[in-house]
Amino acid sequence: MFYIIGLGLSDESDISLRGLRAIQRCTRVYLESYTSILMDVPLSRLESLYQKPLILADRETVESNADDILSGADTQDVALLIVGDPFGATTHADILLRARKLNIPTRIIHNASILTAVGAAGLQLYNFGQTVSLVFFTPTWQPDSFYDRITENARLGLHTLVLLDIKVKEQSEENLARGRKIYEPPRYMSVPTAIAQLAEVEETRKEGTLDLKTTLVIALSRVGGHPQPPSATADTQNLPLHNEDNEHIVSGTLHDLLSIPQDRHAPTFGKPLHSLVIVGKRMHILEAEFAEAFSVDKENWRRVAKDVYGCAYE
Amino acid sequence: MFYIIGLGLSDESDISLRGLRAIQRCTRVYLESYTSILMDVPLSRLESLYQKPLILADRETVESNADDILSGADTQDVALLIVGDPFGATTHADILLRARKLNIPTRIIHNASILTAVGAAGLQLYNFGQTVSLVFFTPTWQPDSFYDRITENARLGLHTLVLLDIKVKEQSEENLARGRKIYEPPRYMSVPTAIAQLAEVEETRKEGTLDLKTTLVIALSRVGGHPQPPSATADTQNLPLHNEDNEHIVSGTLHDLLSIPQDRHAPTFGKPLHSLVIVGKRMHILEAEFAEAFSVDKENWRRVAKDVYGCAYE
Repeated sequence: MFYIIGLGLSDESDISLRGLRAIQRCTRVYLESYTSILMDVPLSRLESLYQKPLILADRETVESNADDILSGADTQDVALLIVGDPFGATTHADILLRARKLNIPTRIIHNASILTAVGAAGLQLYNFGQTVSLVFFTPTWQPDSFYDRITENARLGLHTLVLLDIKVKEQSEENLARGRKIYEPPRYMSVPTAIAQLAEVEETRKEGTLDLKTTLVIALSRVGGHPQPPSATADTQNLPLHNEDNEHIVSGTLHDLLSIPQDRHAPTFGKPLHSLVIVGKRMHILEAEFAEAFSVDKENWRRVAKDVYGCAYE
Repeated sequence: MFYIIGLGLSDESDISLRGLRAIQRCTRVYLESYTSILMDVPLSRLESLYQKPLILADRETVESNADDILSGADTQDVALLIVGDPFGATTHADILLRARKLNIPTRIIHNASILTAVGAAGLQLYNFGQTVSLVFFTPTWQPDSFYDRITENARLGLHTLVLLDIKVKEQSEENLARGRKIYEPPRYMSVPTAIAQLAEVEETRKEGTLDLKTTLVIALSRVGGHPQPPSATADTQNLPLHNEDNEHIVSGTLHDLLSIPQDRHAPTFGKPLHSLVIVGKRMHILEAEFAEAFSVDKENWRRVAKDVYGCAYE
C-alpha cells in the first residue's frame, strides 16, 4: 500500500490517529518539502512520535523519482507525508497515476489545510472563489496571471485566498552557473512584500481590482498554531509541548497593513508561512464583525466595511 | 477555554492528537449534529476513545443555546466537536462571537473537510470556484440560487463542489401542526436525486449551464473512509477497526450517472453523505486522466473530455 498522509498545519500533534497508525505500519516513510513547513519542529520530534526514521524528499524528488519512493509498495507499506492536506497545493496526481500504472494500491489520509482553516478569519468558506498563489517577483519575471483570478473573484464579490511564495533549494546565479549544488537559505514571502507586489500589478494593469485605501484584506500566519493543552490523562505518546502561540490574524485595508512600521512586522504578522485574503464585496455583516476583531484600525475597518462593502453595521 | 474541534471525515480515528488531548482536558464535551455524520460509528466508540461522556447538540442548540454550552468555559475547558473541519459548513461565528463577548478564550482545532478532500477525485483545488449546497426540493419550495453560483463558476471554467442536503429532526406536517416533537428518520440526498434537481432547474432557467450529455460530474461518498490499517505497534488507544471500504468516487456525464439502474445505486454511489462536483471547462488533461479511472463509461468520459472540454488526450 502507498499512503499519502496529511500532517495538518502546525506541529507533530496535528496528525490524525488514522495517519499515525498507518505510519507505524510502514517500512519506509518519506516527508515532503520539510524545510518549508512545521518549521519550529525538529525532525527528531516527528521521528520520536512516529517511532520511525524519516526520509526527506523535496518536491522534485517526489515528482521525478516517484519510482524510488514507490519501490516495494506493492508488497510493503510506504508513506509520503505532506504538510497540510495531501491535496492542498497539488493533487500529487503524478505519483498517484504512476502507482496506478504499477498496480500499487494507494490511500489518502486527509488532514486540515489552509484552504479551510482560513475560516478562522471569520469569513464564510462559501464566499471564497478560486485560490491563487503569489510568487516572488524578480527584476525579469513578474508573472501576473493571479491578478486575473483575483479580478474574476472580485467581480463576483468573492473572497480570494492568496498563498504566499516559499523558496527552498534556491541556487545563487553564480552557484547555478558553476553547477555547484549549494542552496540559499529558504525564503518566505512576507505580508508587506505580498501587498507591495499586488499594488505593483494593479499599477500596471489598472483594472481597479485592488485599491490601497478601500480594499480590505486579512493576513494569516500559522493558523491553528496554538500551544497544545497538556494532557489531563496519562500521556502515553509522551507528546512534547509546543508552548508558543503562533497564530496571527491581522485585518485592515491594504494601506493599513502596509503602514505597519518595519520593526512591528514580526510581532504583528507572526512567523511564516503567511497567507492573505482579499475580501470580496459580498462580505456579510457577520463576517465583517468577526474579522473586525483582528483589525489594526477598528474605526477604519468599520468605515470601509460600511461605506465601500455595504455592510449594515447598526 | 472554549474549543471547537474538528473530527475529520470518516470515523473516530480521524481526530488529531491535538484534538484528542484537548478533549481529555474538558469538563464538558458537546457533539454537534451527530445523526448526520460518522453514521456507522456508535457514540460509544467515540466516548470510549475520548474517555469522556458526550452531550449531543443539534445545530439549533448550538445556535440558540450558546450560553448553556459556554457556561463555565471561562474557568474550565469545554469543547464542541464538529464533524469535518469547524469551518466547513459554517464559521460558527455566532457562538464564537458570543464567547468573545463573555471574555471566554476560544481555540479552533482544525481537521480535514470535504472542501479539500474532494481533491481525491483528481481535480486541482485551484480550479474550484464557490462551493454550493443543494437542498431537497418540495412541491412548494425549489430554491435555485445555487444555479446562479454554478453558472458563475462555469462561465469562468471552474469546478463546483455541490454539497447535498441532509434532513435531520424533520417533523411531518401533522406532527408539526399538532406541536408534537416527533421527528422523521434522517434523510440524505442521493446522487440521482441531486442530478434530477439540477436537470429540473436547468429546464426552468435554460441558461445552458448544465447539459445531461456533455456536462461531466464526479460523485463522491465518504471520502477518506478507508479501512484503517491495524497498528504495527502496541495499540495503547485500543482503537477499534473499521473494516469496510466506504469511499466511493464515480465520474461521468450527468446522463451516465442518471442511467445507473436503481438497484445499482447503493453499490455504485456508496452510502451517504454524498457530494457532487460539476466539472468546469478549465479541466486539465491530468485532471481528466485521473478522474477517468472513476468513470462509469470510460469511452464516453474520454470523448466528452476531449471534444467538449478540449482536453488534449494523445
